Order: sequence, then structure tokens, then C-alpha cells
Amino acid sequence: MAEQSALMDKIAALCKRRGFIYRSSDIYGGIGGFWDYGPLGTELKRNIKDVWWNDMVRNHPPGPNGAEYHMVGVDCSIIMNPKVWEASGHVGGFSDPMQTCKQCKKHLRADQVADALAESAWLNALGRYLADRQQEQPATEHSVQVEQWLRKKGKKLAPGLVGREIDAELIALALAGAPNPGEQVSRLQKHCPNCGGELTEPREFNLMFETWVGAMQDSSNKAYLRPETAQGIFVNFGNVLDSTRVKLPLGIAQIGKSFRNEINPRNYTFRSREFEQYEIEFFCHPSEAAMWYEYWRDLRYQWYIGLGLKSEKLRLREHEADEMAHYAESCADVEYDFPFGLSELEGIANRTDYDLKAHIDKSGKDLSYFDDQRKERYVPYVIEPSGGVDRSVLAMITEAYSYDESRASKEFMKFHPRLAPVKAAVFPLVAKDGMPEIAEPIHSELRKVYPCQYDAKQSIGKRYARMDEAGTPFCFTIDGQTKEDGTVTVRDRDDASQIRIDKSRCLEYLRDKLDI
Amino acid sequence: MAEQSALMDKIAALCKRRGFIYRSSDIYGGIGGFWDYGPLGTELKRNIKDVWWNDMVRNHPPGPNGAEYHMVGVDCSIIMNPKVWEASGHVGGFSDPMQTCKQCKKHLRADQVADALAESAWLNALGRYLADRQQEQPATEHSVQVEQWLRKKGKKLAPGLVGREIDAELIALALAGAPNPGEQVSRLQKHCPNCGGELTEPREFNLMFETWVGAMQDSSNKAYLRPETAQGIFVNFGNVLDSTRVKLPLGIAQIGKSFRNEINPRNYTFRSREFEQYEIEFFCHPSEAAMWYEYWRDLRYQWYIGLGLKSEKLRLREHEADEMAHYAESCADVEYDFPFGLSELEGIANRTDYDLKAHIDKSGKDLSYFDDQRKERYVPYVIEPSGGVDRSVLAMITEAYSYDESRASKEFMKFHPRLAPVKAAVFPLVAKDGMPEIAEPIHSELRKVYPCQYDAKQSIGKRYARMDEAGTPFCFTIDGQTKEDGTVTVRDRDDASQIRIDKSRCLEYLRDKLDI
Repeated sequence: MAEQSALMDKIAALCKRRGFIYRSSDIYGGIGGFWDYGPLGTELKRNIKDVWWNDMVRNHPPGPNGAEYHMVGVDCSIIMNPKVWEASGHVGGFSDPMQTCKQCKKHLRADQVADALAESAWLNALGRYLADRQQEQPATEHSVQVEQWLRKKGKKLAPGLVGREIDAELIALALAGAPNPGEQVSRLQKHCPNCGGELTEPREFNLMFETWVGAMQDSSNKAYLRPETAQGIFVNFGNVLDSTRVKLPLGIAQIGKSFRNEINPRNYTFRSREFEQYEIEFFCHPSEAAMWYEYWRDLRYQWYIGLGLKSEKLRLREHEADEMAHYAESCADVEYDFPFGLSELEGIANRTDYDLKAHIDKSGKDLSYFDDQRKERYVPYVIEPSGGVDRSVLAMITEAYSYDESRASKEFMKFHPRLAPVKAAVFPLVAKDGMPEIAEPIHSELRKVYPCQYDAKQSIGKRYARMDEAGTPFCFTIDGQTKEDGTVTVRDRDDASQIRIDKSRCLEYLRDKLDI
Repeated sequence: MAEQSALMDKIAALCKRRGFIYRSSDIYGGIGGFWDYGPLGTELKRNIKDVWWNDMVRNHPPGPNGAEYHMVGVDCSIIMNPKVWEASGHVGGFSDPMQTCKQCKKHLRADQVADALAESAWLNALGRYLADRQQEQPATEHSVQVEQWLRKKGKKLAPGLVGREIDAELIALALAGAPNPGEQVSRLQKHCPNCGGELTEPREFNLMFETWVGAMQDSSNKAYLRPETAQGIFVNFGNVLDSTRVKLPLGIAQIGKSFRNEINPRNYTFRSREFEQYEIEFFCHPSEAAMWYEYWRDLRYQWYIGLGLKSEKLRLREHEADEMAHYAESCADVEYDFPFGLSELEGIANRTDYDLKAHIDKSGKDLSYFDDQRKERYVPYVIEPSGGVDRSVLAMITEAYSYDESRASKEFMKFHPRLAPVKAAVFPLVAKDGMPEIAEPIHSELRKVYPCQYDAKQSIGKRYARMDEAGTPFCFTIDGQTKEDGTVTVRDRDDASQIRIDKSRCLEYLRDKLDI
């Protein structure tokens, strides 16, 4: 645990040092739950969004068994008519239970209080268990139950415990952290995990940021910052049908910022108050919803693997019935094994016709669809793949982070070529020896096609180190031999190997290797 | 005026009908000052932002006389520490004077009340002038004054009036609408231009949207939605220098949403409450600020022309001394001749060291720069090209809007190829005659490179019409002759001309013609 937190700290330090991520408003001491992207982070995030848009919208793959479907995009406002959030249920129900410590005045999410207490009790008990009973025993119902609970929490059972009997006290404590906390949780929750002070009773805290539109700060002007981009898509379903010639099955995609007034933002950029989402609402005939759910679940999981997340660090986890939102028929999470534990990158849900029906009900507008092939009018079912852009960025950074004692930089970033902020660098070895005259045209040629850097400062080792930290896949070096035989050195980021190619072939080489 | 407003209405109708722009939260009656982009609008807006990022950041041109400079990007949070807005002056001074009608309860911007009244008086008087005095007279001081006033308002003197004497009453009324309203305006402003009711005295209304971060809605948690992206760049100036190796002159670019709680949003998407900006803060030595100001002013003006805005509809207007913000040394607007008048697309300002010094002052952090070539430490001057993405979109749509009685669609959109949401379409002429087998591989080949549509429905005329309205530059039609000689028809959107090329040459032809 300490080791993992140290890894996250190292990654965060590199992110700040190399301009991937800064604290928002850093010179004013920051602001909790808000982050800025620096030059490299901005390009990385742009690349992730562009790749998503290209792969999901502009050039999407065929459906199951080659089935055709349509994909279009929308770009909706963050502030919407508040009736949208009444219909969606967010005004009434988008809240977390909050407790306040009467002593240290901290606001805490009640479920996290329960988790924190249950977990620390659980870990203590686990320690005792391991110390006291080093005996082998057969797998029991108990360890299965504990394992299930841990899986829900994105944690794994310690290898030494797999298949062993775990005593009743431990299980009770573990289950106390489950989604429906019972008496034990209430008992635990009376005291602050930070200072031990007395906690208030839990009360519901709505996570939507509030504001006013117009001159008067009264309830008639109250509005919200969207907590998800999805509703902008639902309320535009009719507009999209009316203004395009697309037929169902149809996906409407959107990338944009959303806001949640988290009580305790945490885990670096993972749970922040302002974040970007990429969401698709995929409208289809109810009878085909299960098929499309599986299609999107698998496609989205594979997409992350295709961008370099190793499958052993990714998990596709189907929700259990008690975890699902009341409107969802099925739901799966794509989770990544961050240093702080397995955590959700994206959720794929079969939302049924819940949202469209809620908006039909509240707005009085007909959002049903006439299917001219089936000769049938119906309210479509919706499959929603909903991913977090910032979470993807953080996963890609975590995955790319590599350590090699033998390199000058020691740390280097193995980004997938499609995501690398800089695709190549050009170095003239000696700045005042006719080499810039060779290097500059190469750089000019490359940068027309790919984001590319030119660096003529300091030793070649330091220049490689800088590009290793930025995650630049290839560096072209112009040296003494270039003037003799016209070849340049190409260095590969991943294995630091070097070969020589003719200086006229740099762009061709890059095209070939990047394959993008 | 009525004709121009009719043009804007036609454009807005096409935008809704073809899915460029919808009202936000349309099914709930909308929400004033907020807009959504539909499928075509989303692609158009994406293209404009991508072209800007490519031309200004990734692949920027050389500076004056080939001078080198650096460009990097950032992507900052919308909600920042409120101290940022205290330092920038927005908490204290980012307000408009507002009046409320005691009768109809409308809130009105005081300067617009003055304008509306002065303008209607002016137009009335102008009408009388034209009716009464049809005599020729030499140019006088009077007409020059009136022309200056009109120029400030983004209006032109009616051709019949140029060089004529204009009487004193008219000038007084005209001048009453000038930026520093005098006694006349106060007199005019007492009555509501909508209902004639009595108006309250003007009071200052801050345009920043307010919210709270965290669990408590009290002043210690108050925060703002950023009214401009610029300040995110200023507060990160030190972070960017520390985390990259870039030297001055240096531009830091950002694209993102900003929010202003406009009292009266108007002119379609032009003045909305939520909007997207592209901004550059360009940091340089104070002695070079004037040079870089001219460079950016001219570069930005040319950029719009390069994307197809006709130079006679664009104006580069240097501000007069009394128009400039107190911190600006020089300022120019790029204005476009919208149907509602000449209006600002982008402002280019020499902001001096005002912003950095304000943040040094308020944060206590050193944001000065040590220039190792000059061996000098200084607080840089800043040139700011600040453009509105939504305004650019609206200008591009307005410019592209064309009318041709002889076409099936009548209306068609002449977008610059770099901006066109769809670059090409592929049509098999008869859907059930072996032509799809030829058309589909062509479409597959094209869509890997360019956003491309496939349409096999209805008559060829209707398909052309749909692509004309979407502004698609080229359509490839597969017809009977294709099966005989392997050629397809290419139709050019702009002149509706058609030629035949070999079916294997579609991608090559498109590459050639689009040149992107």
C-alpha cells in the first residue's frame, strides 16, 4: 500500500515537473478537486479525445455480424434548463450521504467513513489473523464472501489468504463496508476517522453545482452545471432525428466537461470536481438492446487495450444486481489497476427506455421513433458507454510510466504512438558545425505531418532524457557521419536501440513505424 | 435592416433544420443565451478548433523577419481559486450597468437602453432628413462625426448621406449613443424601450456566474465560472516555464468554455452566456511588444481570410484611445459583417505587464523571467489574440450561406474545404443494380482519410441537395456508365459542374482538390 502510494507520488511529481498536470490556481495554493493540464498533458488529452472521436464516431467499426449503425456527434451546453435535471432525477436524487465532524469540522462522505472504518478494522483484523493462525485450511464459504466484498471494492484478497478460512469477526467487519450498511456501519460511523470526534447524523448532499442565470439570485433563476453529458444527448434525440437522415440503430456521441461537487475529491485527478467525459447514447430497438450492450461493452474494453493498457491491469466487471441503478438492465465497468486500487475508467450500461420516457413525461414531447423497416413505433432502448477522459489520461500516464536505471532520465514514458504528445524529435549533434543546416529541413518536413520537436541544446544524453520523459517514440540525430554519408541516427524510445537511416528517409521511417 | 434580419432568420432556420445549431434544452422551451451544436455543427466547430490549434500551436508560421518563437498549449479548469478573479479585477469590475423596468420587470443593460433609444431616435430623424432634404451639399464636420459614431457602432452611413450635411439634432442624437453617455442619455434612459415604463437608476451587475465549491453555501466557498480562459494561462506562466525548456518569446494557447451572465443575450449564438474561446497569451520582452502586437494582429486577420471570410466583409479596426481598457497599450478588433452589423470575432491587445504584475502582487509569487540572452530579468509584456469559437462558427456559416434558385436545395453552404463537416459523399445511382458493390469500397477507402457519407436513398437530385445544404465539397456518383467504363461522376459543390474520372482515382482526386 505504502509502495503503491509512493508510485502515485512519483508519477504526480513527474507530471508536474514535465508539464503534464498542474494543480489548478497553483500560485494561489490550488483549489481542491480541480486540475490543469500543462503543455504535454494538453496534447496527450487532445490525442485521446481525437482518437476516441475518430474510432467511435467518424470511422467506427461495423456492428455485431457486420450490422450497420450510425454515429453522429453533438456538443451541448453545460448549463441547461433546470427541468432537464428534474426529469433525469438528478435534482431529487443525485446526492451522497454526508456527515460532519463536530470536532474537526471536516465534511465526510458517509459511505467513505464506513469504508475507512471498516477497512482499517478489517486490515487490523487481517493482520492479527495472519500473525495468529498460520495453518492451512480448505476454502470455505467465508473466504468466498470476503473475496466478493473485496472485489466490489476493487481490492484483491491477499494471496496468503486465498482459499483459507477467515473468521467470523473479519467477515462481519468486511461486510459492514458493503453497499447496504447495516447496524454495524451505523455503530462505526459515529466517530470521525480523522480525529475521533463525534459525527453528525448522515444527511443527503446534492452533488450538482448550483448557479443563477440572469440578474436575480432567486429560485426561479437557479440552474445547475451538468453532472453528466448524457442528458444533453437525450433531450436532443428528437432534434437529431429531425435534422439528419439517420435511422436506428444510432449512436449520439459527445465529449465535454461535467461537474460534481464531490465532498472529498481524491486520488490525484481521478475523482475531481470538474472533469471531462466521453459518452455515447446508443439508441436501438428494445429487442436488440442485449446484443448491443454486449457489443459496446466488448468494443470499449478492447479500445483501451488497443491504446496500450495491458489486459492484466484492465478488468471488465459485470455489476451484480444490487449494484445497479434502478433503471439499468445490465451494467459493466472497465476498471484499471491504478496504484490506489482497481478503479472505474468507463461504465457501459443498458439504460433501457428510462431516460427517454422520463423526458417524454416531463416535457410532454413525443420522443418515440417510427421504425419504417419494422413498421413499428417505439421508445428506443439505450446503451450508454460513458468514459472519463481525465481518468483515461491518468491510466495512460500510469501505464506509460517506466523505470530504467541505465537511462539518463531513469523514468521514461512508453505512450502508445497514437497518444504520444510529441511523435519525434530532431537533434543536430554539434550546434555550430553545419548540422543545423541539415537538421532544420528534416524538422520542417516532419512537423508538417506530426507534432515534432527540435532541440539543439546541451548533450545528446540530456536531449534523449528529455524526450524519454515526454514519451517521444523516435529521435533523429544528425552527427558527424551525416555529413560524410548522409545517414542519421534513429533512436527508439522503448528499447533505446539505435540504427542509421538515410537522412531523406526520416518521414517515411516515421510513417512506417507510427502507422498512424 | 428588415432584410438583414430576414437573412439571419433564414440562416438560423437552416441551422436547425440541418443540425448545425439547436436551442439548448429545446424540449423544455430552451434557456436564454445557451445553444447546442447538432451533428453538422459539432463537426464544423471541431474543424475550426483543430485548424486553429494546428495553425497557431503545432505548426505555427515564423515570426516577423523569420524570428523564432515557441508555442505550447494548456487546458485549465473552468472553476478556479476565486483569488484569481480578485487579482484580475473581475470580482471588482467585471460588470455592466443594469436597469430594471418598474412596469414590465425586464432587466436591461443600461448602455443598450441608451443605444436602443438613441438609435431609434436617430433612425427616425434620418428618415425625416432623407424625406425632407434631397439636396446635394458638400461634406462637413457633421457628417464626419456621424460617420465616426456609426463606425463605432459597426454600422455604415447610408450611401445617400455620405458627404452630405447632417443637421445638428441628428448629431446630438447620434452622439448620445457614444460610449460615455452624457446628459441626453440620462434623459432618454428614464423610460423602458419595450413598454415605456419607468426605469430604475442604473446599478452595476457582475457578469461572472457564481457557485459554491464544497458542502457549505457560504462566502468562504464562493467560486466563479471563468469569464475568460486568459487568466488560466497567466497563473500557469511560471509552471510552464518550470516544466518545459521553452524560452521567450513564448505563446501559451488555450481553447475552452467561458461563461458570462449576460443581461440580454442576443444575436443568435453571437452573444451567449456560455461560449468557447481560443486565446493566446504571447509573452515577450517589453521592447518588442509593439512588433509582436502588429505581427499577431495581422496574422489573426489573415487567418480568417485564409478560411474563406471575404476581406470586404472583414474589418481590422484599431481601437481609439477612449475605447481601450486601462491596461492596454494597443488593441484591434477583427470584425465580421454579420446580418446584424459589424461585430467582433476576435480582439488583439497589447496587455503590457498588467496581468502578470497583478498576479505577482496578489499571490506573492515571482513571475518574472530571466532572459539569458539579454542577461536581464523582467516581467514580460503580453500580446493577447482572443477569439470566439462560436462567433467564428457563426461567421463561417453566414459566409458559406449561398442561394441558387436553379438548385434543388436552393440554399447551399460553401464552406472552406478545411472546415466542411463532410468532405465527400458517395452515391450509388440505383440501389439494387450492382452499384453498391462498386460504391461501398470507394466509400470505405475515402472514409479512412476524410469524414465521408454514403447515401443510397431517393433521387440523385435529392441526394445532391442534402449534400449542398451540408456544404460537402464533392460527390462521387456511381451510375450505369461506371459498370461499362469504370468511371464515376464527380460533382463540384460550388458550381455544380460534373466531370468523370476513373473509379480508382477518387481518393487521389479528393486529396488533390481538398489540398488538406
